[in-house]
Amino acid sequence: MVHAPERPAPGAPPVRINLYSDTQTRPTTAMKAAMMEAEVGDEQHGDDPTVHLLCDRMAALLGKEAAMFLPSGTMCNVVAINTHCRPGDEVLAHETAHILSSEGGSHAAVAGVQIHPLRGERGMFDAAALRAAIRGHGRYSPPQTLLEIEQTANIGGGAVWPLNTLTELTGIAREQGWATHMDGARLMNACVASGIPAAEMCAGFDTVWLDFTKGLGAPLGAVLAGSSEFIGRAWRWKQRLGGSMRQAGICAAACLYALDHHIDRLAEDHANARSLAAGLGQIPGMTVQEPETNLVYFDPAGAGMGAGELQAALRAEGIAVSALGGRLRACTHLDVEAPMIGATLEAIRRLLRA
Amino acid sequence: MVHAPERPAPGAPPVRINLYSDTQTRPTTAMKAAMMEAEVGDEQHGDDPTVHLLCDRMAALLGKEAAMFLPSGTMCNVVAINTHCRPGDEVLAHETAHILSSEGGSHAAVAGVQIHPLRGERGMFDAAALRAAIRGHGRYSPPQTLLEIEQTANIGGGAVWPLNTLTELTGIAREQGWATHMDGARLMNACVASGIPAAEMCAGFDTVWLDFTKGLGAPLGAVLAGSSEFIGRAWRWKQRLGGSMRQAGICAAACLYALDHHIDRLAEDHANARSLAAGLGQIPGMTVQEPETNLVYFDPAGAGMGAGELQAALRAEGIAVSALGGRLRACTHLDVEAPMIGATLEAIRRLLRA
Amino acid sequence: MVHAPERPAPGAPPVRINLYSDTQTRPTTAMKAAMMEAEVGDEQHGDDPTVHLLCDRMAALLGKEAAMFLPSGTMCNVVAINTHCRPGDEVLAHETAHILSSEGGSHAAVAGVQIHPLRGERGMFDAAALRAAIRGHGRYSPPQTLLEIEQTANIGGGAVWPLNTLTELTGIAREQGWATHMDGARLMNACVASGIPAAEMCAGFDTVWLDFTKGLGAPLGAVLAGSSEFIGRAWRWKQRLGGSMRQAGICAAACLYALDHHIDRLAEDHANARSLAAGLGQIPGMTVQEPETNLVYFDPAGAGMGAGELQAALRAEGIAVSALGGRLRACTHLDVEAPMIGATLEAIRRLLRA
Amino acid sequence: MVHAPERPAPGAPPVRINLYSDTQTRPTTAMKAAMMEAEVGDEQHGDDPTVHLLCDRMAALLGKEAAMFLPSGTMCNVVAINTHCRPGDEVLAHETAHILSSEGGSHAAVAGVQIHPLRGERGMFDAAALRAAIRGHGRYSPPQTLLEIEQTANIGGGAVWPLNTLTELTGIAREQGWATHMDGARLMNACVASGIPAAEMCAGFDTVWLDFTKGLGAPLGAVLAGSSEFIGRAWRWKQRLGGSMRQAGICAAACLYALDHHIDRLAEDHANARSLAAGLGQIPGMTVQEPETNLVYFDPAGAGMGAGELQAALRAEGIAVSALGGRLRACTHLDVEAPMIGATLEAIRRLLRA
Repeated sequence: MVHAPERPAPGAPPVRINLYSDTQTRPTTAMKAAMMEAEVGDEQHGDDPTVHLLCDRMAALLGKEAAMFLPSGTMCNVVAINTHCRPGDEVLAHETAHILSSEGGSHAAVAGVQIHPLRGERGMFDAAALRAAIRGHGRYSPPQTLLEIEQTANIGGGAVWPLNTLTELTGIAREQGWATHMDGARLMNACVASGIPAAEMCAGFDTVWLDFTKGLGAPLGAVLAGSSEFIGRAWRWKQRLGGSMRQAGICAAACLYALDHHIDRLAEDHANARSLAAGLGQIPGMTVQEPETNLVYFDPAGAGMGAGELQAALRAEGIAVSALGGRLRACTHLDVEAPMIGATLEAIRRLLRA
Repeated sequence: MVHAPERPAPGAPPVRINLYSDTQTRPTTAMKAAMMEAEVGDEQHGDDPTVHLLCDRMAALLGKEAAMFLPSGTMCNVVAINTHCRPGDEVLAHETAHILSSEGGSHAAVAGVQIHPLRGERGMFDAAALRAAIRGHGRYSPPQTLLEIEQTANIGGGAVWPLNTLTELTGIAREQGWATHMDGARLMNACVASGIPAAEMCAGFDTVWLDFTKGLGAPLGAVLAGSSEFIGRAWRWKQRLGGSMRQAGICAAACLYALDHHIDRLAEDHANARSLAAGLGQIPGMTVQEPETNLVYFDPAGAGMGAGELQAALRAEGIAVSALGGRLRACTHLDVEAPMIGATLEAIRRLLRA
Repeated sequence: MVHAPERPAPGAPPVRINLYSDTQTRPTTAMKAAMMEAEVGDEQHGDDPTVHLLCDRMAALLGKEAAMFLPSGTMCNVVAINTHCRPGDEVLAHETAHILSSEGGSHAAVAGVQIHPLRGERGMFDAAALRAAIRGHGRYSPPQTLLEIEQTANIGGGAVWPLNTLTELTGIAREQGWATHMDGARLMNACVASGIPAAEMCAGFDTVWLDFTKGLGAPLGAVLAGSSEFIGRAWRWKQRLGGSMRQAGICAAACLYALDHHIDRLAEDHANARSLAAGLGQIPGMTVQEPETNLVYFDPAGAGMGAGELQAALRAEGIAVSALGGRLRACTHLDVEAPMIGATLEAIRRLLRA
Repeated sequence: MVHAPERPAPGAPPVRINLYSDTQTRPTTAMKAAMMEAEVGDEQHGDDPTVHLLCDRMAALLGKEAAMFLPSGTMCNVVAINTHCRPGDEVLAHETAHILSSEGGSHAAVAGVQIHPLRGERGMFDAAALRAAIRGHGRYSPPQTLLEIEQTANIGGGAVWPLNTLTELTGIAREQGWATHMDGARLMNACVASGIPAAEMCAGFDTVWLDFTKGLGAPLGAVLAGSSEFIGRAWRWKQRLGGSMRQAGICAAACLYALDHHIDRLAEDHANARSLAAGLGQIPGMTVQEPETNLVYFDPAGAGMGAGELQAALRAEGIAVSALGGRLRACTHLDVEAPMIGATLEAIRRLLRA
């Protein structure tokens, strides 16, 4: 049983419209130029000025004291959980959270914690659900120590947690003595969609991170922010996991470029997503979840074709979408332009007719 | 107690001769050009052709079936130990090994294993020492499952494990049913110094990795190689630790460039190291370990100055060396040119006279 | 926040009818006499003949090759999970399973595994629910390696998993390559209630354990059974957790006595439970779950009194019941005689009238 | 590879003089009578009055606020390390410490910590050795958080750590912010031999435990003591490891009996050990370590017979001694009477002559 990812089959046609994931954006020429000009140093020794610049900017953007550059968003979660928790603790999160479904059981394998899976529509839960999950302080159950929220909720359809819900939830956490962590993989999508500044959106959270490889278009990297004390302790885990790098400024420069040029344009991705959803909604029998940001979940079963079948048929035409939990997901991002939406809709309509 | 690395003090003079570490090499213009031209994809999904190219080339170079790109050498060790071992196992390694001294206790914290610290001169041990460390199969002691070797031995002075020693040790491991892992952070230095091809040097080992951020001069990245079955299982740990990246080909391109242009030139680093050691050896009272590769360990105590004091005095002149275990270490690499060796010797002689 | 159990309040009346838990049975005089006469040795060194006798008898009773004596049932689960699984694995179990709710997060803290919580009535799930929980073999999700079943299902009301359901479930497990483990804390209750011999009931399971401190009435101890190879490996975990004991035969003798004298009489406990449930069912507004073994779950809310209030009022009269998940639980066992059921019913009726 | 302990070979002669280990003492008739009369309850629920009595007495004896009953001494160490430390921490202990050699790698497997092995004669180290092992606070090395001492030092020959050494060491620990833990498996032997009360001997330590199954002669059990806050947190680990028991008072009663009747008599064991050592010392070529308590380490190699050979020859005559690290160990305890020492010496002399 080999778990390495499959390499692309030699005969597959090239992808010409990539709605598979915003993680697949390619760095632009301008972004690469910024990378080449970056002043670099040994990041692991605190000597990379571009990494310092990025961390300082991110701390300001997120309203936290300090920040840390890491090679991936998953590592932000792993570092944060290990720094917040001790083995045997319990984390409260939605049952569709990335930390539960997509990190290979890292929370248990590396941090020794269990996740209490909360339920709720669109990948979100409310104060009542959270209160119902509070355990006593007995020895039989694990101590609850961390509340985790994913903004936007990916499997929830790219849904945006409303700020007042977040405030209620972090209020409960504070009352219970829990730490709070925001998986902000697509935080800027939530901010652009809602008009709420990032620092305000995560004000109630002890820690938060932003992924630069999704809509922001950088080749690699994510930044985790929190108090200086927290980030200080988190460095131990960065080291232990092998997340300390060397001339990482070359990658941090792409992130700085993205902060300057790729945030406001997320609005285009959201418009493209709405336009795709609108078109899909006009297809008889198609089930479509109304997009709040850049993710469009839809199910063609009622329109006469299975999800897997439609995915394969589109791929044969060079259009890539992903399949998650029985539905298809189309993701808009900076490599997706408005005409591609029309072309995709046309292809879907044609394939369903055939 | 903050553990984040100190940022450089504002008033410190710039480093003009960097003998601190070969991890601090900066990517050359030509290397950066190669990076910019790289064809990239989503590495985590198996879609990055440049990463595939690097992995295929490394598998061939190291004589293994498969390879995996990771953001750091430390992560290669963490992934390998977690894939080879189960919690409660024991790893046999030299007491100065990187996995024991410099990875924040990761082997225990993440993999749950203990390391049996073997002793021996120059960071190496022999067959007799290894045989003496074999435990029985009782329940009281942990099962021994992995032999680890660091080629070259950093704290041992950049010493090169002789091939026949390696063959003897891996023979014992096979006899005992242990897996074998080579931390090849500076493997190419050993190969260039000894004239032994990499594949031959690690032929007896199940897994081996090479760091591209040391003498090879890339900004980040390391490659772990082993059997296809092993690399398949290792992908789970790459995912769990957050070592799966996105358009990582941009960094892999630097590694490919290094394979083409920065291996043979390691001989210059070795010559510079020998020349520095020779010069130091002529200073009365100076203790110098004869360098085998690119690391020169020396102790100025007998020459009238403490190690820390000399390090600080050199740094004040813009010459950086590191201090490890009471000695100073000067490391040669591609940013160090022959005249800098003379300048460094002159500065040391002058400082000792003062 | 102190987690040590509260000692009894000095002024509380003594418990005269203990329906709190079958874990609170006290060893009988005859059982203690058997303990005193036991031939003992150093259990940890394999020298205790009474422990050997118990293990041999239990292996035969459960139809497995070998068995191991441990101080508690919880340790049987911890040893089994650690021996079956590796960190990052996933265990499939009911969402009310003891391993998830009552072992302090041990599966995550000690074994590094996560539990996939399955749903279903009466603490049980069926083949369809299990099939729906099968994951693919991708790197993002943890590998599934163990199916766990609790016979009887405590929080499910002491429900007995039907043998054909068990056979279906273990068939799926075998097909998927998973190991199978039965938490048989109250296995003998299931066997007595169903008339199915223990070896037949757990025939499809790789490992199974029986608790001697519940209905069987011994002061401490549980026995874990499986293949010789498994029990051999499990000894490492017994040692690591501190479960290796010395003259443990003195406790094993109580278990042997229980095998001879306290199994058939579980039928009386079941009759007492049915009689209690019948009486409760006649109280208007009382919700009662039909007992299959020795546990009676009931909710007095509809009868005009909160569960906590009734529990306290009963306790003030020397009658102890437990409260679990909003319901009350009365547990019958060898210290509960038929007249106590009548007295309890009378007290409840009187308290509800008041 | 089966790790379960070997059962005794059917044809082996019975052991008539058991110098193998003080863990093999059998409960006396009077001790068993005390066990039978014990008032018991559900220990796990805080309802066992005899366990409470034992814990209160032990807290007083050891000068700590609170105490906890556990099934074994190894579990005391596992609970203490898990409660004191976090994964990735480092514990400082002697390289021959029980936690390093005899607990199956539990410190790494369960607690995720590494042990820094200190060296020194007779299983002890001094303040200079401890100071030399202090690390800085960098990210590369694990944080040091716990000092552990084994009183008496078993592999050190049952040596007694002098109180002033302990005071110096715990002073350094306090200065460094480390917690301190005493493995007091044979603490009472140290107290009886030195005349220093237990509370004074462990005054500088945060936690300490005493084993009742060694010289004190109980069938199972050990008691861990510390602050109320610590013991409160430790209960979580007692639960997680499966160390919470039920009617454990039956075993605690044996410990209470031992406190009353088996402490002063340890002086006899020490006298027997000295007498054995004196006799062995008169055998030409025999190497004997002067015993401080109840352990006599000797090496017959110079007297013409290998250690293993002599052990086997003695066992064939019904005299059991153990072999540890190339030497033989004879252990005196309450099942060893003075005449057996003479008989053992006679047998050894005879066997060596043959």
